[in-house]
Amino acid sequence: MPDTTENPFFVIVRAGDRLEDLSTPRPVIDEDRLASNIRRVQSYMDQHGLSFRPHIKTHKIPAVAAQQRDAGAKGINCQKITEAEVFAAAGFDDILITFNILGHEKLERLSALNDQITSLKVVADNSVTVDGLSAWFADRKPLNVLVECDTGAGRCGVQTPAAAVELAVAISKAPGLTFGGLLTYPKPHAAEQVQSFLTEALEGLEERSIACPIVSNGGTPSLFDAHLVTAATEHRAGTYVYNDRSMVRAGHCTDEDCAMYILATVVSRPTADRAVVDAGSKALTSDLLGFSDYGQVIDYPGASITGLSEEHGVIDLSNCSERRPQIGEKIRIVPNHTCVVSNLFDTMVFHRGGIVTRVEAVAARGLVW
Amino acid sequence: MPDTTENPFFVIVRAGDRLEDLSTPRPVIDEDRLASNIRRVQSYMDQHGLSFRPHIKTHKIPAVAAQQRDAGAKGINCQKITEAEVFAAAGFDDILITFNILGHEKLERLSALNDQITSLKVVADNSVTVDGLSAWFADRKPLNVLVECDTGAGRCGVQTPAAAVELAVAISKAPGLTFGGLLTYPKPHAAEQVQSFLTEALEGLEERSIACPIVSNGGTPSLFDAHLVTAATEHRAGTYVYNDRSMVRAGHCTDEDCAMYILATVVSRPTADRAVVDAGSKALTSDLLGFSDYGQVIDYPGASITGLSEEHGVIDLSNCSERRPQIGEKIRIVPNHTCVVSNLFDTMVFHRGGIVTRVEAVAARGLVW
Repeated sequence: MPDTTENPFFVIVRAGDRLEDLSTPRPVIDEDRLASNIRRVQSYMDQHGLSFRPHIKTHKIPAVAAQQRDAGAKGINCQKITEAEVFAAAGFDDILITFNILGHEKLERLSALNDQITSLKVVADNSVTVDGLSAWFADRKPLNVLVECDTGAGRCGVQTPAAAVELAVAISKAPGLTFGGLLTYPKPHAAEQVQSFLTEALEGLEERSIACPIVSNGGTPSLFDAHLVTAATEHRAGTYVYNDRSMVRAGHCTDEDCAMYILATVVSRPTADRAVVDAGSKALTSDLLGFSDYGQVIDYPGASITGLSEEHGVIDLSNCSERRPQIGEKIRIVPNHTCVVSNLFDTMVFHRGGIVTRVEAVAARGLVW
Repeated sequence: MPDTTENPFFVIVRAGDRLEDLSTPRPVIDEDRLASNIRRVQSYMDQHGLSFRPHIKTHKIPAVAAQQRDAGAKGINCQKITEAEVFAAAGFDDILITFNILGHEKLERLSALNDQITSLKVVADNSVTVDGLSAWFADRKPLNVLVECDTGAGRCGVQTPAAAVELAVAISKAPGLTFGGLLTYPKPHAAEQVQSFLTEALEGLEERSIACPIVSNGGTPSLFDAHLVTAATEHRAGTYVYNDRSMVRAGHCTDEDCAMYILATVVSRPTADRAVVDAGSKALTSDLLGFSDYGQVIDYPGASITGLSEEHGVIDLSNCSERRPQIGEKIRIVPNHTCVVSNLFDTMVFHRGGIVTRVEAVAARGLVW
């Protein structure tokens, strides 16, 4: 039971406590669903011969990453150096940071981390990043750098297979750097497009006799299509570990696979059609992800969380049957997006059948790069 | 310089550091704008004879609340017991928690807090809350309870002046409780409606010879109309202390009064019209508050933050002039909503003219009730 007592203002939760007695709002994780999500995805990856690299952004908890590793995951994926530092300190020694690292203050920490663990990898999608990394690592332990490819998601990444090859050539020639492979964070349900981009880039690399150790594909929404991208050697995913309402909508999982819900208390019933709970945007976040409301109220299917203030959630009950939540009642809300909820809380409570099993510090949250 | 060294994974920032050398993403507060916001609002309240009770949700930092108190604020406003505990420990002894408190685990902490400080006040908008408080406080130091009124905002609150009077009567008769007054969190720019509700409720209380010590109005968006609600004796506001893009739009302040911006680094320029920064929803939050993009890029007026992942912000540059942000460049973003940004970070950096003046722990964030 880590560190819940270090801060005198924490509400103490202990193994054996009943969820119904916990103070709210409070996200909790179902141990069985968590274990089942880890098992199901790892088994799929094993079946298709794909290395699996979980993204720790979703939980930010070393003990959960250890469960993923014990199930068969090869290495982990972080998004920030400070996240990677937390996990390196917890014994993880194969870490991929999927971000362009720029600037002296980050490079200093990056090289310290590179000295500390066996295998640190980063990505780059431009020559400014590559030049900065090379200048810094030229007289240090070499850094492994993958080329990030935009295969259609429209975020980071080189725009064409030819540009990927060109940047790979630059990395392989750059002092202090080792070319680590290709990486993409794809648009969901676009396996064909991803496969086509990566295949063409791989052909270009082969023409130049550049070995490509890793071809890393990613994402939870269409994770079970990962085998269609035969060019890939590994897959990265974060959200699958807890799942959420958006993953149910994406077809990745069912309601029964959502391991996180937020426990909230009905604190007001100002009108027959309105309930107010103590979970607002500082518990649920305002991530809509295309939904028109802020989470799914498990026990009241017609209820819709139509508005959030920071510590209030306003629920429209007009589509509920006569059974409506009463003041003082605790309700359960599946968040639209689980990863951002984790990021709001310093500790996460795990349970089995409503009995607390453990409390983990969300160790890698709140850290500036 | 508090506690930035307690966690070994914090990036250390010290007074005297230059903002341009800080790692990003990082929210920072301009000391002069902060001081000016505090001064301007307190001076307005003084001028109109209104007690002013700052809401600490915006900063969650005792040292900032001390600046507000030193300027003349009478007491503070918290939204959660754990917030109030942090501020009580820092010496604040007039605290109003504007929430219906329900449940054994909260009542226990509430009465401990009530024993600790001179003046603790809470609100109630229903008889379940009042009965719960009364049962708990009947043989303890009495608790001061205000009636929350819904004067049009559609969140919590009794729906009519008559209902307010009825609940006030119940509180004044309830063992362990003292009736503390009326409170509303109003719809912005609806002074007339607020005044009318409160006046009618006050008349009802007078008819029953129930004294009403406090009539508390609130909100930043139309704060400078507070004097129009002559029924009020005090005003509560949080956001005014930092201000943000939504407060500029509401007409409360100008761009030059926004004390917070988020420092972010351009990490990718995949296309001529697209920049990607390292500030995503875990730095800016996804609060839109009616805007169509996720913050205002100060230095590039045509730039629009059109998409957020957790650690990436995608900026559309198509409406920018030829001058466009380059990879590695640090840019400044005024958030749509400052209060939720504070809540994401464990420390807040303050500066004057780009030189760090202090780093404060955001002491009251991340605490479950």
